[in-house]
Amino acid sequence: MATIKDVAKEAGVSVATVSRVINKSPKASASSVESVTKAMSKLGYRPNANARALVSQSTNTVGVLVGDISDPFFGTLVKAVDNVARENGKHILVGNGSHDREEERQAIELLINSRCDALVIHSKGLTDEELIAYAKEVKGLVLINRYIAEIANRCIFLDNKKGAYLATEYLIRHGHKNIACIASSHSIEDADERIQGYLAALSDYKIALSDSYIEYSAPTSDGGEYAMTNLLTKSLPITGIVAYNDYMAAGALSVLDENGIQAPDKMSIIGFDDGLIARYVHPKLTTIRYPIQMMAEKATRLALHLAKGENTSTEPMMFSPTLVRRNSVEKV
Amino acid sequence: MATIKDVAKEAGVSVATVSRVINKSPKASASSVESVTKAMSKLGYRPNANARALVSQSTNTVGVLVGDISDPFFGTLVKAVDNVARENGKHILVGNGSHDREEERQAIELLINSRCDALVIHSKGLTDEELIAYAKEVKGLVLINRYIAEIANRCIFLDNKKGAYLATEYLIRHGHKNIACIASSHSIEDADERIQGYLAALSDYKIALSDSYIEYSAPTSDGGEYAMTNLLTKSLPITGIVAYNDYMAAGALSVLDENGIQAPDKMSIIGFDDGLIARYVHPKLTTIRYPIQMMAEKATRLALHLAKGENTSTEPMMFSPTLVRRNSVEKV
Repeated sequence: MATIKDVAKEAGVSVATVSRVINKSPKASASSVESVTKAMSKLGYRPNANARALVSQSTNTVGVLVGDISDPFFGTLVKAVDNVARENGKHILVGNGSHDREEERQAIELLINSRCDALVIHSKGLTDEELIAYAKEVKGLVLINRYIAEIANRCIFLDNKKGAYLATEYLIRHGHKNIACIASSHSIEDADERIQGYLAALSDYKIALSDSYIEYSAPTSDGGEYAMTNLLTKSLPITGIVAYNDYMAAGALSVLDENGIQAPDKMSIIGFDDGLIARYVHPKLTTIRYPIQMMAEKATRLALHLAKGENTSTEPMMFSPTLVRRNSVEKV
Repeated sequence: MATIKDVAKEAGVSVATVSRVINKSPKASASSVESVTKAMSKLGYRPNANARALVSQSTNTVGVLVGDISDPFFGTLVKAVDNVARENGKHILVGNGSHDREEERQAIELLINSRCDALVIHSKGLTDEELIAYAKEVKGLVLINRYIAEIANRCIFLDNKKGAYLATEYLIRHGHKNIACIASSHSIEDADERIQGYLAALSDYKIALSDSYIEYSAPTSDGGEYAMTNLLTKSLPITGIVAYNDYMAAGALSVLDENGIQAPDKMSIIGFDDGLIARYVHPKLTTIRYPIQMMAEKATRLALHLAKGENTSTEPMMFSPTLVRRNSVEKV
């Protein structure tokens, strides 16, 4: 591979001159720019990105940590970060945390050691204290889908409680009273907040239901199947279901179908996320939209601003979910 | 942020000693290792990853170019690359090419300039010549889902023709003769090869059908809806459909449902990819499995071997698709 010395020799100039041309120094003469550019092109010389990064103490890279890159929810998040990064002439480095404390820590260390300008972090495994410490160390670090009071100006998050409230209220307005909740057994705040939203809606509409109406399971399609099976087994007079996410709703629909219980005629169900599969299940899923693309764009812009030491805006950091009406809810 | 000079001062040693400790030089004494490590920890000093990369002329990074990171097909690809990269102590840099020639070129340039050790490239926009030139420049570059004869030992690809042949033959064995093909209108080899597989199966089983049985559209759910609508409009006596991918099959199912044509009772359909949505559509989709995870793992291992200048294995580079039987095909 050609070196800067080869370029200097080919162009008939000094190494310092080549360096000036590469770094777009105003001291580089027009003739040297021309001869060096020609020599670089002839030799296939690429100015070493690492060397340039070393000088500027920045790699022009935005780091992003996600839970599982193969889940389209995170795919959408990463794509949004990538779009904003590219608008700003930067590229992205992706880490997979698998929602695990140790893996998240390793991934963040790697991103920081790679001198990312800005970090967009989706972490469910690390403690508040650990994330606060990272935020202190890296001024361009922003959390997405998490709220920590001490670093509230670095958090972009969703009003999960409102989302589950909207879903439950929508069923109530369609005449449902015996509404079950298929909840996530993962101990993350999203799970708690969505149950709180479900309970708050029931309470506001004076509907009293026993705890048997809440079934906990893994936030996957299999988990939804398991929870739905348990609900059916309990012989409760359920007519509507609020699911933790679209995957759980899809699993529940699958069990309903196998048991000859037609949705939405005999059972209404609402998902959460409005992810890729919501439009493909049958019936098409009425669900709560998680505006992850908009939130990831916002998080990236904020991280880039913070990295440059610019003042952050006073725009709200909490995003609101909205209801997307499709075909999985009917009046009782 | 602490510098190497601060660490040297804190540890009471020279900068050269700190450097030796960071680079794990055998010349570093045990006592200097201890004092420097303690000083680095106290000051929160991170050995500059860029500086280390500059010395070794390598960033420990695997670059990966995909078409659309928000599509779970590519999400699965990226996750597989990440897993193999991490097994090898490396991390990944992701570029989005959007199947566009210019965007793919820019993304590859960025990955090369970032001195990626190894590159796993999914390119549909660049010409064979351009990719051959990149392969010559970067010894650790491997193409995935593309075959170029001149650099066959750098190509990991699928036998698309066999996949479509399997799908068509499966319908024929279930008694279908009037089999339509919902094809992709994108001018990439995958599209041609899958049509060839469909035609070869018909020919082997002495089934003659007019060109009207092939309908071209965008390889998306909307494209599938459009193609299915056109097929219905032509009033052909179709009982089975081979779709270019699962999205097109899902769109076709949606149109069939709206038109009161029950699948699989009145219409059988087979997808391609066995992507995320195949298990969620109704009926669950019988489809051709694209082993993208296995292929991406293989591509990454190959890229890492090539980057190190190691001899490549003589294992086959062409992967075979397989049929996944679910509920969307019935006997006529």
